[in-house]
Formats: sequence, structure tokens, C-alpha cells
Amino acid sequence: MSPKITVELLRQLRQAMKNSKYITEPIQAYIVPSGDAHQSEYIAPCDRRREFICGFNGSAGTAIVTEQHAALWTDGRYFLQASQQMDNNWTLMKMGLKETPSQEDWLISVLPENSKVGVDPWIIAADQWKNMSKALSNAGHSLVAVQDNLIDAIWEDRPPRPSTKLITLGLKYAGLTWQDKVTALRGKMAERKISWFVVTALDEIAWLFNLRGSDIEYNPVFFAYAIIGISSIKLFVDSKRLLHPAVREHLELDSPSKPELTIQCFSYESVYTELQAVCVALAPKEKMWICDKASCALTQVIPMAHRSAIPYTPLCLAKAVKNPTEIQGMKMAHIKDAVALCELFAWLEKEIPKGKVTEISVADKAEELRSQQKDFVGLSFPTISSVGPNGAIIHYRPLPETNRTLSLNEVYLIDSGAQYLDGTTDVTRTVHFGTPSDYEKECFTYVLKGHIAVSAAVFPNGTKGHLLDSFARASLWDSGLDYLHGTGHGVGCFLNVHEGPCGISYKTFADEPLEAGMIVSDEPGYYEDGSFGIRLENVVLVIPAKTKVTTASDHTIICSYLCLENTLISDTRDWVNDYHRKCRETVGAELERQARKVALDWLIRETQPIV
Amino acid sequence: MSPKITVELLRQLRQAMKNSKYITEPIQAYIVPSGDAHQSEYIAPCDRRREFICGFNGSAGTAIVTEQHAALWTDGRYFLQASQQMDNNWTLMKMGLKETPSQEDWLISVLPENSKVGVDPWIIAADQWKNMSKALSNAGHSLVAVQDNLIDAIWEDRPPRPSTKLITLGLKYAGLTWQDKVTALRGKMAERKISWFVVTALDEIAWLFNLRGSDIEYNPVFFAYAIIGISSIKLFVDSKRLLHPAVREHLELDSPSKPELTIQCFSYESVYTELQAVCVALAPKEKMWICDKASCALTQVIPMAHRSAIPYTPLCLAKAVKNPTEIQGMKMAHIKDAVALCELFAWLEKEIPKGKVTEISVADKAEELRSQQKDFVGLSFPTISSVGPNGAIIHYRPLPETNRTLSLNEVYLIDSGAQYLDGTTDVTRTVHFGTPSDYEKECFTYVLKGHIAVSAAVFPNGTKGHLLDSFARASLWDSGLDYLHGTGHGVGCFLNVHEGPCGISYKTFADEPLEAGMIVSDEPGYYEDGSFGIRLENVVLVIPAKTKVTTASDHTIICSYLCLENTLISDTRDWVNDYHRKCRETVGAELERQARKVALDWLIRETQPIV
Repeated sequence: MSPKITVELLRQLRQAMKNSKYITEPIQAYIVPSGDAHQSEYIAPCDRRREFICGFNGSAGTAIVTEQHAALWTDGRYFLQASQQMDNNWTLMKMGLKETPSQEDWLISVLPENSKVGVDPWIIAADQWKNMSKALSNAGHSLVAVQDNLIDAIWEDRPPRPSTKLITLGLKYAGLTWQDKVTALRGKMAERKISWFVVTALDEIAWLFNLRGSDIEYNPVFFAYAIIGISSIKLFVDSKRLLHPAVREHLELDSPSKPELTIQCFSYESVYTELQAVCVALAPKEKMWICDKASCALTQVIPMAHRSAIPYTPLCLAKAVKNPTEIQGMKMAHIKDAVALCELFAWLEKEIPKGKVTEISVADKAEELRSQQKDFVGLSFPTISSVGPNGAIIHYRPLPETNRTLSLNEVYLIDSGAQYLDGTTDVTRTVHFGTPSDYEKECFTYVLKGHIAVSAAVFPNGTKGHLLDSFARASLWDSGLDYLHGTGHGVGCFLNVHEGPCGISYKTFADEPLEAGMIVSDEPGYYEDGSFGIRLENVVLVIPAKTKVTTASDHTIICSYLCLENTLISDTRDWVNDYHRKCRETVGAELERQARKVALDWLIRETQPIV
Repeated sequence: MSPKITVELLRQLRQAMKNSKYITEPIQAYIVPSGDAHQSEYIAPCDRRREFICGFNGSAGTAIVTEQHAALWTDGRYFLQASQQMDNNWTLMKMGLKETPSQEDWLISVLPENSKVGVDPWIIAADQWKNMSKALSNAGHSLVAVQDNLIDAIWEDRPPRPSTKLITLGLKYAGLTWQDKVTALRGKMAERKISWFVVTALDEIAWLFNLRGSDIEYNPVFFAYAIIGISSIKLFVDSKRLLHPAVREHLELDSPSKPELTIQCFSYESVYTELQAVCVALAPKEKMWICDKASCALTQVIPMAHRSAIPYTPLCLAKAVKNPTEIQGMKMAHIKDAVALCELFAWLEKEIPKGKVTEISVADKAEELRSQQKDFVGLSFPTISSVGPNGAIIHYRPLPETNRTLSLNEVYLIDSGAQYLDGTTDVTRTVHFGTPSDYEKECFTYVLKGHIAVSAAVFPNGTKGHLLDSFARASLWDSGLDYLHGTGHGVGCFLNVHEGPCGISYKTFADEPLEAGMIVSDEPGYYEDGSFGIRLENVVLVIPAKTKVTTASDHTIICSYLCLENTLISDTRDWVNDYHRKCRETVGAELERQARKVALDWLIRETQPIV
């Protein structure tokens, strides 16, 4: 991987920072956040501005360019990758390390007095704007909204915004009609005396309307906004996409069943002016919900007196608690995914000794095998296929120049998943096809114990995910080891592989308590820089627990493994044997049905009980 | 326990709320916080205003009186106690339960439009004032500072503020001179470009000057303020207390060794005017530290431009990390305490069958036995001595009307501790002198496992205590049980038994990472309402861990038991045997030295290894 040469780009950006064509007064620093106007984690090519300016293409990171400096902040998953992708015009700021300054502190330390710091108000979240603006003001600087994006201004061949075909999801996949979802949402609004709700997150819009798109690779979403009132629905989306009869029928565009369920359609770009119009017509005490992670630009349209900024929206929570149809779909998707992975591992055993299997060829083979499964749509994220030292790059993605060949001598880690019409998968396995070292075995055991500890955890209602994080780390900590990432994230159902508002992390972000029906990943790991990486990941479902003692106020909950119910077994061996028995029952049956004999033999051999 | 009758008091308070003698305009609600002007947890009789108005005498709780309502907020430790101590003029607000409104939400729901809510600005912390004021303003009300305390106005026989004799602590006990502490503090101030620091917490002042008092029962502190400048020291304390030659010599009042270590003494009451004078003389860029938990009255003296409000002070952190002398003192104090408890349990075995031992008589006996130990000063908190159902009242204190007799049929819980010149102790044991039920044994085992899990925890540097909290609960959670309090608190050295800034709790308050040298309690429990209570508590010291793998960046740490170093043993039985072996070695040796034969025999019998 060779770094992107950024000398010329930085020169142009610094010129733009003084160019009166874009700004009234020169700015001394320009912030380039990671996200798009919807604060998406995965973004379309046209929105990859941070990658364009610095070369680093990981999923999280913020670039800041001043007249003298250029710096990029990212987290532990990406330290190695970012240092390899950026040239020496850039300073890597390792977030999470004690000595690393915050963006605010760094700006204050390098800027001349009374500086102006610019940012595109559409791609900075309102809460981030607020914090950054306050910190800068306290130090005598100011944060200014630059309406023309300065990266777009210097990006000559910037791709156009995509507008892919919409997929409609019927009851069979969604479990609830969009009409019922809108009605339930209005119930929540009425409870809190809210008359309008501005929906800006793409997965929330897709989930609400039971629609999917493919505007963003890996995430089946489409560019849109929605404004939901107590008796009206405004949808902002490229009008060409609404021409298809199936979409028109699904949304009842031509013959709405009820007046309050009539969707008014507007162009994507008109959300700003339409929101202004709604705000002008608000009665004195009317309140409007908007997520505090929505764009600063849109948030500031709503007058303070009418604005009710919330850390996560009711749609985010409703979407996180899967309905029975979604749970069933997620289970089926994971069984199909397991079939593909059984085939993959059986194939690897045969092929690796020939010496021609590479990180990229395994990733391709995995995709090919998944694509043979029913209702396959695409991958849910770029496959992390990594051998030996590459495994220590937490969110590694194999490229031709880094591609290593699998062998009998190194640890192999594959973290992959797919989108099926019935669900989204995310699974990581770490394997060794020869004889692992004692140290590798030891680390694997610690990670497995951590994985089991979370998967078998029983906890009271109302427990937030961060209180489970240390369970995943205790075995590693005992030996002086740890990993620099969270333990789990919410997973969407045929939606984004990362979603809120729940998660399992040492960071006590605004996570919501885990509830029965939520689905999160359980993925502890251990990474030995320059040597190997280990991560074990399954997606787990939160279900009501059957505990020995039940008290009226304290109904407890258990996480179950790979969406299969399990009972409580504290012993590692019993736990693994029990898990393997269930794999045989479910995945084995499906392999048999699909007549995949080699993979079935592999599964039966690999799931022999440990005695 | 009969409730306090408050009809007449509430009538008088509501009159005062409209009396122009105290306030310019009538107020519609009056808040009575728990603390004193130093936000102390334990308070002097003259400051027990909340108890005076509602009858509830627990250590935490806020009363609010409106024209129609009277309500008290307290946490899970005190639900039962508060409901027994208050009459039906009061509504108990159970904090931590989902359905309980916050004070702000409740006020907003009961107050007429445009109400004024009053509070004494000396006894509300600045951060609480800010939050309350903002919430009320948003709802159209206002928070107003009432300079005359309205409780004092109706409290006829309010006791005077105490002014007890000061004790000076030499190097033998303190480990560092007050001069060295002041110099170290100024180093921290210089690092952050701070020129003044207003010290308001009583334990910080006592620790800084190596002085102790007995103004507040159980807490060896004295009423004072201090203002530390880069080259001056202002101490605000009743001048009579400085007449004693030992105190004058200790503070070098008559012959200061250096000009910058000269203490200027002022009366306690003059802190307000003196702080005003300091503020008037500040240069434009000078900054002054004050804790955001300091009183609103004092905080607001400092102009915003000069004020640097901090969530905990450098003294709070310096005090929390014990120096070698303090660690040694804490260990010695706990050995002496263990001697007293061995004597107590040997005595109980003999006396209980006679049927005359009560909760109060055990507490008295424990105090008597402790008082025989060297350098004993007093108790560190009111002894919780509770039999059977009383054990389920988490912070129970036996009173004549609740006093139960110990028997062979009920669980007995004793949570007690003392102040010695060399250290502060806090220990809880739960015992049964007959045959406990299977359910009691089972619950005890869960609590013991939780206690061990925290005590044996190894974790990376920089880990905050809240990440260890779930370790203490996992065994209980597995069976559907939990406890409604935190797992541990910082413990002072011959100082307050509860101190910040570290702790172990599911609440993610602003706790600071655990560091080697910090001392915290480890006290999980289980409470079966109306039946029994179980709690096991030792005080543990954070020490550097010897882990199998050591990496440069990741030096880990282990908590050790009762300030005795221990090695890592995951098995419960081995852990208990190892702990008992150490008890024999240290406490046994001390019992032998003190020729306390009965207690020594008891210890040897009780610490037989489990096979």
C-alpha cells in the first residue's frame, strides 16, 4: 500500500481557504469530517471527501487542514492502515491514547489568535458543531459554516450522487407495513407532544417505508429525507425513483388508503426550503424532533423554541428491537451464511496446501459461495481476509499490494457478512491450517472465553451494553492483554451492519439499555502487531432469560448465540460442545438439504464433541 | 421507628416562603439539599436541615416543599428507612427507578406557571444549581437564591456550629509535610497556568494541612476554607482553634520558614469577602480553580472569565493515591480492626445462645473492642448491625424501637469501621450462628463470588472503576438477582470513609481511572426485603500487577484484598483458603502479640483450609 501524494491537493485546498469565491473572509483551518449529509458511516463515492484529501479510506476519521499543518484523527482499528495510506504531509492523531490531543485542543495549540475554522454545515452533526464551536469560542477563535464544500471545489472528477432502483419489502420480510410503522411513530410523538419529526438517517427512512436501495455500497439504503407530521408525510427523494409501478403501489402514491397516510413527494434537494416552510407555519408551542446527530445545516433551520434535539430517535430504537419476522429472517440469513462458510472452510483445507490461495481469492470465494444462497443481495461490508501480520490491522481489507498467500504456518482471520432480503450477517472466524504456536493458542483461548462470557451473560432489564464489555476482556486482562475496540454493535435486518442505539463497549456513549429483540455483535479480539490477529464474532439476540429466581421487578435477559437459543453453561468446553451440537442440527440440516456433501462432512468432523 | 410529625413545620416553612422578611417575592417551592456549605456527605447537627424538615436521617436525600406538596428523593439504600421515618405529608421519590421523576420534572409537573423555586446558594453545589436552573428556565420558571436559610428561620433550637480541638499529624502518619503538599499542588497549578485555587471540601483542607478535627461525627474534619495562590496561603478557620502551641508550631504561624509558605489566617465567615478581594485584584488572564461541586454562593463570586470549574480537584486525586506511609497505616489499621472483630465473633458465639445479645449491644461491643486498639479515635460511620429482615434495609442503623435480638435462626450483618490515627477502616461481614437455609447459603455464595471477582480483577492502566462493577454482579445476575447500590467507594486515610474521585459503580459518574495506590471498598450484597441482607466488604488496594505478558504500553494492575498483596487465583476455594492463610499470618500474629487467646483460637478454627 503506497500513500496518496497530497502536496498539490493541500496547496489547492489552502488556496480555496483564502478564495473569496467560496468564503467572505479567509479561514485558517478547514475540517473535513468522515460522513455525508446523513452522518452515514459508510458513504457513497461522491461523499468520500476525507479520503480524497488525505488518502486514508477507513470508515472513521476526521481530517483538519490549517495553513501549516494537516492532521487526521482516527481510532485504534485504523492506526496501522492510516499510517500506511497517508504521506508525510499528514500527522496521524491516535484517538484513545492519553497523549493524543482532541481536535479542539490541537486547533487551539496551532492556530494564530482570532482564527476562523471552517466546516461544511451539511456534513457536521449538530452536536459536534456545538462542542467544537464552544471550545473554539472559549479560546478566542470561531467556527464558521462554509456553504460551498471546499473539497468539492478542488475535486475535478467527483462522481455524481447515485440514484439506484428501489426495492420494496412486503410483510413477509418486514413484519409490519410502513403504514403501521408510521402510526406507531405518531403514537410516540403524541406521547411526548411532538408535532413533527425530521428523519435524516438513511437507514431509518429505509426501515420506516420498507424500502431499500443500493446508493451506498454494502448498506441497502437510498438518499432521502422524510418529515413526518401528525397528519402528513413528506418524502424527499429523487423523483425518477418513484416512477416504477411497484414503488408507487407500495407507497400508495396514486390511491392513498387514508388522508393521514398520504405521502407527499419532493425532490431530495428541496428538504431545506420545505423544512423552512413547515417551521414558518408552526404554532407557538409546537415542538419538532430532530436527532442531535443530524446535520448542523438542517438542525439550525428549526428555531430553538420549536426544536427538541434527541440523542437517538424513536425510529432508531423501534428498528433496533426486531419484530418476530425480522428475528426469523436474521436466523435464516445466518444459517445460509453458515452454509457458505462451511463450504469455504472445506475448500480452504483442500486448496491451501497447493500454495495458491490468497487473502483476496478467499474473499472472492466467500462472496461466490454466499451469492449462491437464496435472496442474496450483496456483501454487508468489505471482507476482512487477513493472514499473519495483516490480521493485526484491525479493519484490514486486502489490496493487491498487501495480498498475502495463506499457508500452514500463519493465523488466518476472516470477518465477513452479507445482505440477504431476509437479514444481514456479520461473522468472524480465526483459524490455523497447520500447528499454531502455544502463544497463539493461549490468546485464542482468552478471546474465546471473552466471547462466551458475553454470549452467556444474564443481566437485569435496563442494563446498558457497556456494563457487559468487561466480561469480554477479563480473560485477556488477567494476562496483561486487551484490544483497542468495542466488543459489539447493533446489526440491522437487511440494513446497515452497524446500527444504534445499543452496543457493547468500554466507551460509555449514549447507549440505550439492551432489550429483548435487540441484535448485537459479540466480537472480542487480540492483536499482536506485526505478527497475528485473532477475533471471534457472532451476532447475538437478546432474549428473556429463564433464571432460577424471578422477582416481580427484575425480569432478566440472556444473550443467545448466533440467534439460537441457548441455556446457561459456564464451563467453556460444555458451552462449545453445546454450540457445536446446535450448529450440526441447524446448519447441518441445511447443508444436507442443499446437497453440499463436502461441506457437511467438514462440519461433522469439525463439530465432534470435545471430551 | 415512628415517623416525624411535620404538619406544623411544613406550615411554618410555607409561611416563610411568603415572608418578605426573608425574600423579596414569594417562592412557590423550596429545595432543602442534604449537604452543608462544603457539600459534605456526613454533616454536623447544625446542618441537618433536611432531616429537621422531613424526619429522614439517611446520608443522601433532597427534600422539596411546594405550597401543596412535600417530596423527598433518595436512593435504593434508603427506600425502606425513608418510608418509615417520614409521615404522610411526604411523598418518597425512589431514585433509580424508571417511573420516578427527576426533581426538575416533578417541579415542572406540579408548579403553577412562572413559579419561583428557592434554595440556599451555600448548600447547593454550583453544577446542581446550573442544571436545575436551566431545566426550570426552559419550563418558564426560575431558580432563585434565598440568602437567609428558611429552615434555620423556623428551627428554634438549632445547635451552634462546632469548633473542636485540632489534631496535628506528623510525618509518621502523613508521609508528607503540608509544605511539600502545597508545593506539589502549586506544581499542578503552574502546569495548567492556574494562579489560585479555592479549596472548599473539608477533607481536602484536612489532608492538605495534615490537620484533623472532630466537628463532624465519624469524619475527622474541621470547618474551614482555604485559598491557595502561587505564593500565598489563606486559611479560613475559627481563630480560637489556632491558639494551641502545637497547632501554631505545626503551621509555622509564628516563624514561617519561607515567605511563600506563610499561612495568612482569617475567620471562617470571611471567606466570601476575602475571595471577592482576591477576584478584584486578578490580572486579565488569571485563572482560578474551583470544584464544580463547591457551593453556588462561593462559585459565583469568581467572574466567569477567571473561573475554571473542575469536576474534581488535584487535591482530591492526590489524596486518593495513598503514599507509602498512608498505605502502611491503612494496613496496620485494618489489622487492628481485624483483631477487634475476631474478639467480637468469638464473644458472639459464646453469648448469642444466652439470648440477650441485640443489634445495639453488638454495635456497642464492637466499638468497645475497637477502642482498646492503639491510636483509636472513633468510629468511621454509624455501625450497621442488623438481624434478619433489618439486614435488608441497606443502610440500617439500629434504634431502640427497631432493635432485634441475635439468634441461631437469622442472618446477622455487621458493617462497621473506625478511625485510627494511622488509617480508616470499613468492613462488612455476614454470618449465621445456626444453620442457614439453602437459599441464604446460595445467595451468600453469589455475593462472595462477586466480591472475589472484583478483588482478583486485573485490568489495564487507565481503566475506570465502573468497568469492574459488573464483575461483582455476574453471579447474582445469572440467578436473576442484583443489588441496588454501587460496589465500591474510595476510602480516606484517617479521613472520610467515603471519598472520590474513584469508585466502582454501574453509574458512570465522573470517576477517575483506578491507579496504583488508590484504596476502594469492594462490597457487593444481596437483600431480600422482609427477610435478610447479605453484604461482604473489604477495603482493597490497587497495586501494579505481575501479568504473564507485559507490553510496553499496557502495564496492568491488580486489586489486592484487605491491603494484603495476593496472587491471582480464579478458583473460589483456593482464593478463600489463600485469604484465610494470610489472615492467620497477620491478624493471628497480632492477636498473639496482644495475648487475646480466645479470639486467636476462634481465628484458627474459622480459617481451617476448605478441602
